[in-house]
Amino acid sequence: MNSTQNTDGIFPRGQQTSPDYFTGTAWLNVLVPQDETGHYTIGNVAFEPGCRNNWHTHPAGQILLVTEGKGLYQEKGGPARHLAKGDVVVIPSGVEHWHGATADSHFTHIAVTNLTAAGAVSWLGPVTDAQYLACQ
Amino acid sequence: MNSTQNTDGIFPRGQQTSPDYFTGTAWLNVLVPQDETGHYTIGNVAFEPGCRNNWHTHPAGQILLVTEGKGLYQEKGGPARHLAKGDVVVIPSGVEHWHGATADSHFTHIAVTNLTAAGAVSWLGPVTDAQYLACQ
Repeated sequence: MNSTQNTDGIFPRGQQTSPDYFTGTAWLNVLVPQDETGHYTIGNVAFEPGCRNNWHTHPAGQILLVTEGKGLYQEKGGPARHLAKGDVVVIPSGVEHWHGATADSHFTHIAVTNLTAAGAVSWLGPVTDAQYLACQ
Repeated sequence: MNSTQNTDGIFPRGQQTSPDYFTGTAWLNVLVPQDETGHYTIGNVAFEPGCRNNWHTHPAGQILLVTEGKGLYQEKGGPARHLAKGDVVVIPSGVEHWHGATADSHFTHIAVTNLTAAGAVSWLGPVTDAQYLACQ
């Protein structure tokens, strides 16, 4: 809890994310653990500057709705996409990728993550500093 | 197009909603027509002050994420719930309800609406002025 709070957020910032899956500090607020159909979960993720999640895949895809700040989204082998308020990212199932804040800005998105019997995410290794800095 | 635009929105306001299903002026921006699993659609709805949708039901439910302004949500036979930025509404399948702005404020929410073979919404009659004003 040694970081400043982004008090401009739409949703309360929630709980700090696991360092096992994030480089830097981010906060997860689970808005809807599971909808009545059981098909998806909805969360709000607030990244502090420089923070990004590990490379990962989703077995049934995920949708990001960017609400604040400046961020990055990169699929393995492709260029990084710069993100800002109002952007929508449709992440296909099985595609290795990461997302997070730029080095100099907070970044917040809502995530709608599809649930499966095999879970909702498969975590891989960290985005290295070299990989991250190459995207700024 | 005879109304002012809420330029503070996270998402572009999109297209004006049908007067068949709304009293007053609202705008719908379809952010994700259908996710890859086919289970839901995501839209952003911006209501101008005084605007509300008709009574309606969702065959598989809907989730509202409030991002701006002040609004109202009412299930048939119950009291109105006042809504503000950061509120989440989980609307169960089959429950007759309406939502919209208060009389004196813009109101914007994201809606995640579950899709079924029978559609995503069943529209009923308008919320009368008497019903609406009793909730303010």
